[in-house]
Amino acid sequence: MKNIYIIGVGLIGGSIAKDIKKLNPDIMIYGVDKNKIHLKDALSLKIIDKTATFEDLHKADLVIVSIPVDATEILLPEILDKVSEETLVIDSGSTKASICKAVENHPKRRNFLATHPIAGTEFSGPKAALEGLFKGKTNIICEVEKTAFKLQERALTIFKIMGMNMRYMNPDAHDKHIAYVSHLSHISAFMLGKTVIEKEKNERDIFDLAGSGFASTVRLAKSSPHMWTPIFKQNKTNVIETLNEYINNLTKFKEFMEADNFEDIFNEMESTNHIKDILKGIQ
Amino acid sequence: MKNIYIIGVGLIGGSIAKDIKKLNPDIMIYGVDKNKIHLKDALSLKIIDKTATFEDLHKADLVIVSIPVDATEILLPEILDKVSEETLVIDSGSTKASICKAVENHPKRRNFLATHPIAGTEFSGPKAALEGLFKGKTNIICEVEKTAFKLQERALTIFKIMGMNMRYMNPDAHDKHIAYVSHLSHISAFMLGKTVIEKEKNERDIFDLAGSGFASTVRLAKSSPHMWTPIFKQNKTNVIETLNEYINNLTKFKEFMEADNFEDIFNEMESTNHIKDILKGIQ
Repeated sequence: MKNIYIIGVGLIGGSIAKDIKKLNPDIMIYGVDKNKIHLKDALSLKIIDKTATFEDLHKADLVIVSIPVDATEILLPEILDKVSEETLVIDSGSTKASICKAVENHPKRRNFLATHPIAGTEFSGPKAALEGLFKGKTNIICEVEKTAFKLQERALTIFKIMGMNMRYMNPDAHDKHIAYVSHLSHISAFMLGKTVIEKEKNERDIFDLAGSGFASTVRLAKSSPHMWTPIFKQNKTNVIETLNEYINNLTKFKEFMEADNFEDIFNEMESTNHIKDILKGIQ
Repeated sequence: MKNIYIIGVGLIGGSIAKDIKKLNPDIMIYGVDKNKIHLKDALSLKIIDKTATFEDLHKADLVIVSIPVDATEILLPEILDKVSEETLVIDSGSTKASICKAVENHPKRRNFLATHPIAGTEFSGPKAALEGLFKGKTNIICEVEKTAFKLQERALTIFKIMGMNMRYMNPDAHDKHIAYVSHLSHISAFMLGKTVIEKEKNERDIFDLAGSGFASTVRLAKSSPHMWTPIFKQNKTNVIETLNEYINNLTKFKEFMEADNFEDIFNEMESTNHIKDILKGIQ
């Protein structure tokens, strides 16, 4: 493998580039991005060696697509049109069903591997890229059987070097499960932040009292709306289901409080407390 | 100051003891706790020098009350009954109105200072106690004018040594504001944890996909229900108000999704995004 093209040199694309470059300094990494500032930053941060365009993709051994999921859905077929018969194309999107559907009948479907590395921070852009971001993290691979054997192997070699643990799922199961452990957390954080910001408009200095607990719970509200709006759009049905369940649980908790039923308030919390053990090992 | 009595040698009482002991090794620290295992742990961890009982409190220069807020409400008048005219009694409860009300007419009201150090972790007990937990954190002091000048000064000396920043508020304002930046975050985390745990009962391996974002958002669901049930009980009206607003915001978000109004989904997130700047400096 000589030439890697990263489409979208942000947090995820940039972090993948950093890991590959560290482990294989001889590989040339090309960056493609419609955001010229990101491209310039990625160059000056040495995340990429050179900038490139879609017209160069026929030279790629590997193309990594790490752009918002709505853009992936549109551009992925065009990218497959342009690459060679030997090129591996990987995406890293937080939804999988729409993306897999967008290329299901593409003549180069076997060149594509659908993945979702479960790693990231609340920041975005090449300046947020981190070496070792994926080490010890889970990478979900969907429809592995639709990718050519040789290209599967090429992908696994890279993911193993990056220290990731593979999980194989179908796209619908991925989207359903990830709505619970990722998409809902983001909405919960955004709306918690909104509730407190709205209050502070009338009651000053509320944030002066905020401690580490609040900061942790609301951290994901720093995330990029440009990235998250298309995710919620593509995973609409599952996300609405999680929101219904979450709102029902909150409403039940409130009703216990209104009824002075603090025995059930205690029970609600105690039965959730074993999340301590479940979360062990997740950093 | 020679003799300090810590009532409740858990995370908060233990961490205060550690800071005081480090800065004043000659001070004797006595521990009072109905939990014998906690007392034994506090002794073996050298958080306290000796165990003691309520009957010894007349010897105290300073009494720190760091027990669940329902126990504080009941025991604080008894503690004030037992201490000398020169003793300073401080509580560290997460609610302030009920506690201040419980001693408003006590003949030794001037010996008491109501405080809420905004620090902690999701863990509890003396093993969770940390040196330096309060450094750079906010300490809310309520009804300072009701405490004897000399004793105010003694308290401030200790808090300053511990590196805390003082904020003065009345108990009602404290309870209202803290409902937003602390109590609501705990309920949001507990119910998020509950929602995902319920789902996993039918859909296995959901947690295997959880990343750092979920872990951060749900972290407070590890907190002790023994500590939090009485807090929600004492701050019922304010907490219900925050829950109503939070549920409304979540419902509105869901309705935008149902209506395919992703422009407003974007706007909801973007208008909350400046929480980045607000949270700067909160660890």
